[in-house]
Amino acid sequence: MAKELVFGHQSPDTDAICAAIEYAYLQEKLGYDVEAVALGEPNEETKFVLNQFNQKAPRVIKEAKPEVDSVMLVDHNEPQQSVSDIDKLNVTHVVDHHRIANFNTEKPLFYRAEPVGCVSTVLFEMFNEKSVEIPQKIAGLMLSAIISDTLLLKSPTTTDVDKNAVKELAKIANVDYEDYGIKMLKAGTNVDARSDED
Amino acid sequence: MAKELVFGHQSPDTDAICAAIEYAYLQEKLGYDVEAVALGEPNEETKFVLNQFNQKAPRVIKEAKPEVDSVMLVDHNEPQQSVSDIDKLNVTHVVDHHRIANFNTEKPLFYRAEPVGCVSTVLFEMFNEKSVEIPQKIAGLMLSAIISDTLLLKSPTTTDVDKNAVKELAKIANVDYEDYGIKMLKAGTNVDARSDED
Ligand SMILES: [Mn+2]
Ligand SMILES: [Mn+2]
Ligand SMILES: [Mn+2]
Ligand SMILES: [Mn+2]
Repeated sequence: MAKELVFGHQSPDTDAICAAIEYAYLQEKLGYDVEAVALGEPNEETKFVLNQFNQKAPRVIKEAKPEVDSVMLVDHNEPQQSVSDIDKLNVTHVVDHHRIANFNTEKPLFYRAEPVGCVSTVLFEMFNEKSVEIPQKIAGLMLSAIISDTLLLKSPTTTDVDKNAVKELAKIANVDYEDYGIKMLKAGTNVDARSDED
Repeated sequence: MAKELVFGHQSPDTDAICAAIEYAYLQEKLGYDVEAVALGEPNEETKFVLNQFNQKAPRVIKEAKPEVDSVMLVDHNEPQQSVSDIDKLNVTHVVDHHRIANFNTEKPLFYRAEPVGCVSTVLFEMFNEKSVEIPQKIAGLMLSAIISDTLLLKSPTTTDVDKNAVKELAKIANVDYEDYGIKMLKAGTNVDARSDED
């Protein structure tokens, strides 16, 4: 199978960066040749998360076509939020939790979206459906992304599915999610403004 | 929860009609108030299938808005293949296996598509993921839809996922799928032309 790049939206937030890493990990286990990349540098909050779980930031790319013909999108679908040369690329997989707009394909594809507070919640379900074990580091990234998108389960987009995922992931990651969540959200506010409010 | 209608595309084929019945069954088990309907009468092949498994044909509707505000789509997403007043409706769920084109929503939704030969194959996976038992009748409808869309697993769109589903469903439905499949495909060709080639 040809290599594919996996990435979140432009001006990536914690979910966009972590979901790319999580999905690349899952897809590798399922036999795909993938690399998680990002369309921008991590913001302060995301740096805190990556540091916390000893995870390198994904390589930043400006374009994907020079490297691959096919890509996998996480945490977005709208072309104007995606990589600059998205119209030259074949999107084979999308995992998201946003509305769908201006997203067109020529061929059938894998598309998985659920109306939940964070795409890492959807990915958590997908690991379980495929019985792929969630390592502590990946659980930490998932937990952080859900805390980030739902503002520690307080935002109106939060669902029971997100809450349940946070409880289970906190056990795997061995983290007190209330305590950790506050520290993480604080880390994101001490410097520049949050890049993406969802 | 408000009632929703579940339906396949216009000029429905076996998959469009059976998938609506299958998905309505699953969603009811998951707590939704739903009714499977259709956008046209069953063709000869589908009549044979419904008869074979003692299943009533879904009620045919011209419009959905007079009855509901929200709908669930199966086996299609493109508006021009959907119900005539689709633009007045809120699409909350889509389960499909086609490309995505001109499909836009205002809000996040449940969207599940996989590049396989038949949407009933995707629904078969979803029953298993949610551990909802597949009754013999539903298994028979799923089996028939996959045989119909993939021309008894011969069409180029056929995947191993479809083949595996047919084997398992044949056991549940207690049917010899080769023998049954030939009879079913024959029933579809003896009168009017096939309405939808996929
Ligand atoms: Mn995001
Ligand atoms: Mn998100
Ligand atoms: Mn069809
Ligand atoms: Mn179909």
